[in-house]
Amino acid sequence: MLMELDFEKKLIEEANRAEKLAPELHSRYHGKIEIFPKCPIRGLEDFAVWYTPGVAAVCREIAEDEDKAFDYTNKSNTVAIATDGSRTLGLGNIGATASLPVMEGKALLFKYLGGVDAFPLVIQQQEPEKFVEIVRAVSAGFGGINLEDIATPKCFHILERLKQELSIPVWHDDQHGTATATLAALINALKVVGKRKEEVRIVVFGVGAANYATINLLIAAGFNSGNILAVDSRGILGRHRDDLKGSYKWRICEITNADGIEGGVDVALKGADVLIAASKPGPGVIRKEWISEMNDDAIVFALANPVPEIYPWDAKEAGARIVATGRSDFPNQVNNSLVFPALFRGVLDVRAKGITEEMAVEAALTLARFAEEKGLGEEHIIPDMMETEVFPMVAAAVGVKAIQLGIARREMSFEELREEAERKIMVSGRKLKVLMDSGLV
Amino acid sequence: MLMELDFEKKLIEEANRAEKLAPELHSRYHGKIEIFPKCPIRGLEDFAVWYTPGVAAVCREIAEDEDKAFDYTNKSNTVAIATDGSRTLGLGNIGATASLPVMEGKALLFKYLGGVDAFPLVIQQQEPEKFVEIVRAVSAGFGGINLEDIATPKCFHILERLKQELSIPVWHDDQHGTATATLAALINALKVVGKRKEEVRIVVFGVGAANYATINLLIAAGFNSGNILAVDSRGILGRHRDDLKGSYKWRICEITNADGIEGGVDVALKGADVLIAASKPGPGVIRKEWISEMNDDAIVFALANPVPEIYPWDAKEAGARIVATGRSDFPNQVNNSLVFPALFRGVLDVRAKGITEEMAVEAALTLARFAEEKGLGEEHIIPDMMETEVFPMVAAAVGVKAIQLGIARREMSFEELREEAERKIMVSGRKLKVLMDSGLV
Repeated sequence: MLMELDFEKKLIEEANRAEKLAPELHSRYHGKIEIFPKCPIRGLEDFAVWYTPGVAAVCREIAEDEDKAFDYTNKSNTVAIATDGSRTLGLGNIGATASLPVMEGKALLFKYLGGVDAFPLVIQQQEPEKFVEIVRAVSAGFGGINLEDIATPKCFHILERLKQELSIPVWHDDQHGTATATLAALINALKVVGKRKEEVRIVVFGVGAANYATINLLIAAGFNSGNILAVDSRGILGRHRDDLKGSYKWRICEITNADGIEGGVDVALKGADVLIAASKPGPGVIRKEWISEMNDDAIVFALANPVPEIYPWDAKEAGARIVATGRSDFPNQVNNSLVFPALFRGVLDVRAKGITEEMAVEAALTLARFAEEKGLGEEHIIPDMMETEVFPMVAAAVGVKAIQLGIARREMSFEELREEAERKIMVSGRKLKVLMDSGLV
Repeated sequence: MLMELDFEKKLIEEANRAEKLAPELHSRYHGKIEIFPKCPIRGLEDFAVWYTPGVAAVCREIAEDEDKAFDYTNKSNTVAIATDGSRTLGLGNIGATASLPVMEGKALLFKYLGGVDAFPLVIQQQEPEKFVEIVRAVSAGFGGINLEDIATPKCFHILERLKQELSIPVWHDDQHGTATATLAALINALKVVGKRKEEVRIVVFGVGAANYATINLLIAAGFNSGNILAVDSRGILGRHRDDLKGSYKWRICEITNADGIEGGVDVALKGADVLIAASKPGPGVIRKEWISEMNDDAIVFALANPVPEIYPWDAKEAGARIVATGRSDFPNQVNNSLVFPALFRGVLDVRAKGITEEMAVEAALTLARFAEEKGLGEEHIIPDMMETEVFPMVAAAVGVKAIQLGIARREMSFEELREEAERKIMVSGRKLKVLMDSGLV
C-alpha cells in the first residue's frame, strides 16, 4: 500500500513537472529538429558541385537508374514519420497539426538512438486510401516509412496497402515496435522459468494495434497459435464471437483459441502461463485474484502507460514470478525504442525493399540474446535503454536477415553492418555534443 | 573574339570539373542534408519533456489553437521544396526521384543563406490537381511552400490553387525568384542611365515561367504595361496573336503592347530602352545588330544559363550601356539566391499567411537601395552574393510589408526583424563551422 502511494505521488509529480516544463521548453526552442548540411560548404563556390552546374550529372544518372538515389542523396538515411493524427498518444483524434510535437519527438529518438534522419510528415487526410495515395506519392525521397498514431482498424489497411505499393520498408511502430520488444522479453522470461514456447498458454488482453501485431509475431516466432487466448472488452476471442465477423479481429478469432474457450479474462487466465496486457492505463484493470489463478511461475506483462494495468508488486504478491511493464522506473521495461531506431538503421544500411516478420523476429532474438549474455534474471529479461551497444547489433541482425531474404539492395557482413551502424549512431551523438558544448544547441 | 574563346574554354573546364566532381562527392556524403536535434538532449530522461509524457500538454494546446504549432514546433522555420520533377534544371521531365539532388542542393542554399529549414518534397504525381491535393494535405508541418522545377503552364495553376487553399506563403521560385532579382537590377539600371520606369520601352524575350512573373512584377512595381513588348519564338505578343488564345500567354497579349506592334524580336527592339531575355542558352540567341537598333543607353539583361543569350562584350560593342547576366563571373549577376532565402526568412519570422507581389516588390526595392548605398555604377546595379548583410534587411523589409498588409501572425519592428534574421542566419553558419572544424562534417 505504501509502495502504491509512493508511486502515485511520484507519478503525479513527474507528470506535473513534465507537463509544466514541456510548453515552456517547446516554446523556447520553437520545435525540436532542424534540417542541416551534412556535407562541407567552404563557400559559395562549392555550390557549383552541390548545386548547379555539377548536380545535373547526378540527376541524369538517377533518371537512368532510380536506385542510384540511395548513393547520391540522403534517401538512404531518411525515414518519413507519417501520421494522420487520428490516434495520437492517449489523446485520441487530435489531427495532423496537433500531432506534430509527438512526431518531432519521435524524430529525436530516431536520430539519438539510431542515427536515422526522420521527418515528421503530418497528413491532413483521414480517408485511408487517400492517405495511402499521398504517402506513395511522396515516398521517392525516403528510404523507409514509419507509420505512427493512426487509428485502428484503418492502420492495418494502410500498412498492407503501402507494403504492396512501395519497394521500401513500411513499419507501423504502434503495432510492431511494441510487439517486437514484447517478443524479446517473452523469449527470455520463458528461459528464466524453464517453459517452452510451443507449450505455454498465453493470454493477450486488449486487441488493439499493439497486441494484434504481438499475436501475429508470436505465431511467426513459433508459438502455438491454438494456445493463445486473445481477450477484448467483451471476452475471449474465438469462432463463437459472431459480433466480430467482418472486423479485423475475426482473423484472430479463427487462428487462436483452438479449444474454443468462452468467457471473460478471468476464465482465460485460469491455468495460463503468460499474460500480455496492452489495454488501458491501470491500476486495477487486471485484478490480483485473476493472477492468482494463473499457472505456477506466471509471467505478467502489464504494458499500459503511464500506469500499468496492475502494479508489479501486486502482480508478484498474487503469484507472478516475472513482471514487465512499459515504464523505465520498474525492472523489465518493454520499450519500442529498443527496436525502431536500430531496426530502421539496419534496413536503411542494406537499402532493404521491405520489412518482414522474420526481420522483426530477428531483432527480438538479438535483443533477447544480448540480455541473456549479460545474465538473465527475473528482473533482467530485456536490455535496458542504457545498454546502447545492443542497437548496432540489432541493426546488423536485421540487415543480414534482409540480405538472406533477398530483399536487400546492398550486401555486407554482420560485422561490417554492426560497425557501420555503430559509427553512424556515434557520429550523431558526437555532433550533438560538439554543438551543445559550443553553446549553439 | 579572344574573350569569347577564353570564356568558352573556361566554361567547358568548369562544367567538366563540376560534372566529374559531383558524382564522386555526392556518393561520398550520400546526400547533402540531415535532420538534426535543435534542442539539447542531455540523456534519455530529457525525453520525458520532449516526448512522453510532457509532450501531451503541448499537443493539447495545439489541438485547441492550431496557430500554436508555430510556437511549439519547427513549423515556424520549415519550408517544403515541392516538385514533381517535370522541368528540372535544363534536363526536362526527369521525374521526382531524379530531381532529389537539386532539391537537396536548394535546401543547402536555404539554410546557408537564410537559416531556413527546407525539406525536399519530391512528389510522384504529375496531374496538377492531384499535386495540389498532396501538398495541401502535408502542409500542416510547414510554415511555407517553395514550388520548384514544375513545367509551364501547370506551374501557374498549381501556384494559384495552393495560394487559395493554404494560409501559409506559397512561392514558385522559378517564377518569382528571378523576377524579383530582375526588378531590383532594373530599378538601379534606370537610375544609372537616368530614365523613368513609367516611360521606358521594355522588351521581354522568352515568355516562360520567369519572364511571365517578371512582366507581372514590373507592372506591380509601376512600370507601364502598355510599353512592355513580350516576345516568344513566334514574335511579339499582342491581341493579334490568335494562336495564343486559351494559353497562359493570352493575359500578356491583353495587358502589354498598347500600340499593337507586330513582328519579331528585331522589330520589338527598335527604339527599346530595356531588353530582358530569359529564353535559351546562347551565345547568338540575341544578335548584335538587334542591340544596335535599341535606344541610347540601352540596358540588356541576358539571363539564360549557363551561357547568356549574348556575351556582355558583344552587347556592349553593339551599344548597350549596362549588361546583366545570370552568371557570377560577369558583373551584375541577377540571381534568385539573392531573394528566396531572405524572403522566406522574413515571411517565416512574421508567420505570414501568404506572399503577395507587394512583398516581392519590397524585397526588390531593398536590394536596389542596398546596392545604391554601396555606390551605383554600370557594373554595380545589384548586390553580389558576398554582400550577405543585405539578406537580413530583405527579410525584415518583407516581414514589415506582411505586417502592413495584415497577413502576419506576429508583429515586430524592422530592426527587431533584421536582428532576428541576422542571428538565425549567423547561428546556422556557426554551427556548420563548428562541425567542420571538429571534422564531423
